[in-house]
Amino acid sequence: MQISPLQKARNEYKPKTPSILTQAPARVTLKFSENPTSSTASAGIQELFPKTFHSKPVEFVAGDNPAANTARNVAVILSGGQAPGGHNVIVGILDGLKAANKDSKLFGFRNGPGGILADDCVELTPEFVAPFRNTGGFDMIGSGRTKLESEEQFQKTVEVFERRGISALVVIGGDDSNTNAGLLAEYLAGTGSSIQVVGVPKTIDGDLKNEQIEVSFGFDTATKTYSELIGNIARDANSAKKYWHFIRLMGRSASHIALECALQTRPNICLIAEEVAEKSLTLDAIVETIVSTIVQRSQQGKDYGLVLVPEGLIEAIPEMNTLIGELNTLLAEDEDYFGTLTTFEDQAEWVNRRLSREASYVFSTLPSEIQRQLLMDRDPHGNVQVSRIETEELLVDMVSTTLRERKARGEFDGKFSSLTHFFGYEGRCAFPSNFDSDYCYALGRTTALLIQNDLTGYIATVRGLADAASDWRPGGAPLAQMMNLERRHGKDKPVIKKALVETSGAPFRAFEDHREVWAKDTVYRYPGAVQYYGPTEVCDATSITLQLEQGRSVAI
Amino acid sequence: MQISPLQKARNEYKPKTPSILTQAPARVTLKFSENPTSSTASAGIQELFPKTFHSKPVEFVAGDNPAANTARNVAVILSGGQAPGGHNVIVGILDGLKAANKDSKLFGFRNGPGGILADDCVELTPEFVAPFRNTGGFDMIGSGRTKLESEEQFQKTVEVFERRGISALVVIGGDDSNTNAGLLAEYLAGTGSSIQVVGVPKTIDGDLKNEQIEVSFGFDTATKTYSELIGNIARDANSAKKYWHFIRLMGRSASHIALECALQTRPNICLIAEEVAEKSLTLDAIVETIVSTIVQRSQQGKDYGLVLVPEGLIEAIPEMNTLIGELNTLLAEDEDYFGTLTTFEDQAEWVNRRLSREASYVFSTLPSEIQRQLLMDRDPHGNVQVSRIETEELLVDMVSTTLRERKARGEFDGKFSSLTHFFGYEGRCAFPSNFDSDYCYALGRTTALLIQNDLTGYIATVRGLADAASDWRPGGAPLAQMMNLERRHGKDKPVIKKALVETSGAPFRAFEDHREVWAKDTVYRYPGAVQYYGPTEVCDATSITLQLEQGRSVAI
Repeated sequence: MQISPLQKARNEYKPKTPSILTQAPARVTLKFSENPTSSTASAGIQELFPKTFHSKPVEFVAGDNPAANTARNVAVILSGGQAPGGHNVIVGILDGLKAANKDSKLFGFRNGPGGILADDCVELTPEFVAPFRNTGGFDMIGSGRTKLESEEQFQKTVEVFERRGISALVVIGGDDSNTNAGLLAEYLAGTGSSIQVVGVPKTIDGDLKNEQIEVSFGFDTATKTYSELIGNIARDANSAKKYWHFIRLMGRSASHIALECALQTRPNICLIAEEVAEKSLTLDAIVETIVSTIVQRSQQGKDYGLVLVPEGLIEAIPEMNTLIGELNTLLAEDEDYFGTLTTFEDQAEWVNRRLSREASYVFSTLPSEIQRQLLMDRDPHGNVQVSRIETEELLVDMVSTTLRERKARGEFDGKFSSLTHFFGYEGRCAFPSNFDSDYCYALGRTTALLIQNDLTGYIATVRGLADAASDWRPGGAPLAQMMNLERRHGKDKPVIKKALVETSGAPFRAFEDHREVWAKDTVYRYPGAVQYYGPTEVCDATSITLQLEQGRSVAI
Repeated sequence: MQISPLQKARNEYKPKTPSILTQAPARVTLKFSENPTSSTASAGIQELFPKTFHSKPVEFVAGDNPAANTARNVAVILSGGQAPGGHNVIVGILDGLKAANKDSKLFGFRNGPGGILADDCVELTPEFVAPFRNTGGFDMIGSGRTKLESEEQFQKTVEVFERRGISALVVIGGDDSNTNAGLLAEYLAGTGSSIQVVGVPKTIDGDLKNEQIEVSFGFDTATKTYSELIGNIARDANSAKKYWHFIRLMGRSASHIALECALQTRPNICLIAEEVAEKSLTLDAIVETIVSTIVQRSQQGKDYGLVLVPEGLIEAIPEMNTLIGELNTLLAEDEDYFGTLTTFEDQAEWVNRRLSREASYVFSTLPSEIQRQLLMDRDPHGNVQVSRIETEELLVDMVSTTLRERKARGEFDGKFSSLTHFFGYEGRCAFPSNFDSDYCYALGRTTALLIQNDLTGYIATVRGLADAASDWRPGGAPLAQMMNLERRHGKDKPVIKKALVETSGAPFRAFEDHREVWAKDTVYRYPGAVQYYGPTEVCDATSITLQLEQGRSVAI
């Protein structure tokens, strides 16, 4: 049984490392920022995080920290959806711990936060992690979606860690998991426990970023993988010249993935959920935009094209947002009764009677397949599973109806044939790009340093990412300072705010400047498969989004 | 407006070339095979191809052919579905023609065979083709599905070519297009025309192969691209440990693509249409196989997995084959009446009354979505569009029903959650792998030599493909010798037989030897993205199928 040649080659890859991280841990120390408090944090947050809110962001500089050489037992969990590079974070932590003291140990708790509660862990030795260096996936120890958030769970964590002599926990996760990491850190500090908690920013969606975090890991590789596929399909559209491809892309509420893929591939249309919400564009208005592009291209003899649809679009459309909100309330309130309705017809009838007049109208005008998806696929909390709604099918259905009407009225004489795609699972476990391999390994080494410097309630940061890896600036930022209070289920809850696409930001503006030309002309760009070897501009470039956000000029 | 860094780099790539093709065309001559007549050709074929049947397969060897230096005007078309490498075939033809005489010209007729009938062409100069070197897609001149098969079309072709002074046509296509190329060559020879016709074996499906053709171009890149995605999804399944992924793969009747992807990724289950047909496995039997693997894995705590489903499966299942055959006849016979039935209910009712008792039973037991697909998506000839039937959804539906029944009976206590995918368009226009870049360029240079040696009715061949490119053996084989008579619409028609997966062949046997272990254990292999640079075993290896068929030993 052999591993693939690429896996073998990637196992040998040596990540490019910021120069400060090549020093022995005992020769690295902290430099605290002058400007400790985030301007965006609300007052209530400070009260909720008395112990950890007033920490200052740090960067690592040359200096002495003999305490780094203390042997430590550290735990790590992978939390939530997969993102390329998670294995390198773990490998980086291990290498960082061992560089200080060979007796330090790293324990991986299996299948996410649930693994801590079940006390299910494995020691991650250098031999154990070797085959996972620079590979995708979270299969080294598995991941899970259990939330570590109640006091009971926190106590259980302390129990398990004390029994095992573990003095620090690393949570590799997205906004929710890092919020809970911050809460756990605060809880532990409040009880006088010396157990440290450090987070690492993970998510392909790219929505965990702020003044301190330039990008979450995995975004680079996932968008490169989707852009490969979109580019291939664009080239197919431009060769066969007979299909409109509607491609939905993963990414939850935020449209960062769709936007990056648009900048990479120059599709005819890319919808951005944040713009739709900001301008309160109705479903009809969106359909009209698509239809007018199709008609315009058809008049030039081009009955083909490419439309990118972010997963979050459906929730951003005002009337759909209202409908989904009402459905969530309705199905939660009368979950038991709803469960007794076994046919779709009965469910739809009951729902229609209970929805507001406006929402009921919207619901009843949707294609029946979409109505079914709204009622049938709900998450464990009873909410509509937005990610399983086939928005691309909804758009195709409405666009083709409109075009048939126009054809009947003699206003359209082209052809409209469509194919739909959804990309998500294809990119979450790809081999991390060189950027993500390097970035994640650096995040891991940085995490080890934060622990070796006795910090808690921090998230690992590596900044200056548009520069060469040797110049990257590793450090950490207090989790509490990234939080806001949000009203959830009638209670104020601290949460790390999801970063949405800003329509005033450089990536969106670059897109806005070009989209009219992309719509009319056929100027697809073909990024091709992620390359790990070859010319540096082919294998080492990071996302256009990151470059633009860091003020670099990029020819679009 | 910039092309992608990879496209820029690929434009500079120099394909590895068989040593005989590095000679000047005038220094290369023909070596005819001793063994001219294919043993598989039927007697009737010889009568249909009196002029071109008795040609002998050739290989190119060093020698003198001063006639190669004659200036020639050659035409080329891309026919049918896209396959990675088509552009390199064209570039190879052009380089081969120009190497002999700078005044030779290559004309590309646009959008397939229809471009000849519309006399729509462009001269392909070195400057014109430069940006297409080593790129995917057929967008250089477009492709099309018009068939060039009637005498009227042949006459029109002669007219266009004579007016333009074109003395040879290259048809880059699959089995159908090459069959028609053979018929055109015979027609021209029969009328005393000196216009030559040469075919080139193209199709990602891998079903155009025989004693002379080791593999059609595009198969290598397409299967590598699908294997990348399958491997990524396998790693996701193995990380999240909660989904069964059912992945349908393009490939028409033959399961070569699914089989190669299985050898590359080691899924838990891969269905092979040819085996299903050979063993007359019913839909129920297939579902039972899948269910028993799911149950077995569930008992080990593994409620996740990966199933590959070839596009051709649905037609290979005996009762579905009967149903589809009856539907095709029915819908063709009463096309006009059927067109008046506007609701699915009316259509289903009518169809059910007209089908045989057995077919009607099968139809009525299918999920309604599949029934709709069988009735609604038909090709221009009125046939059911097998490629648009979501066989993966059909299987998921039946598997999950069976598992719910078992659960109710207390025979299954695991979980079954599924996700479905279809991969096809993602791989047809990828940048050709190094293998396909090299192979296609060699096919193009070989095609130029066949023309320069005044041959007609040949298909370009490059053999010894499991060896280093420098040792490949370029040549040609008579198209007529690859044909068989098949009964179509009540008439005998010569066709190049589609090569199906042979259950006695080395690739299937390798799969068969391992599939039980793959089903039970989790031994996914992760090929990763197609690499164009880096270690040779990472970027130059060809498909496992080809290596096994050429007698190489491969560790599976």
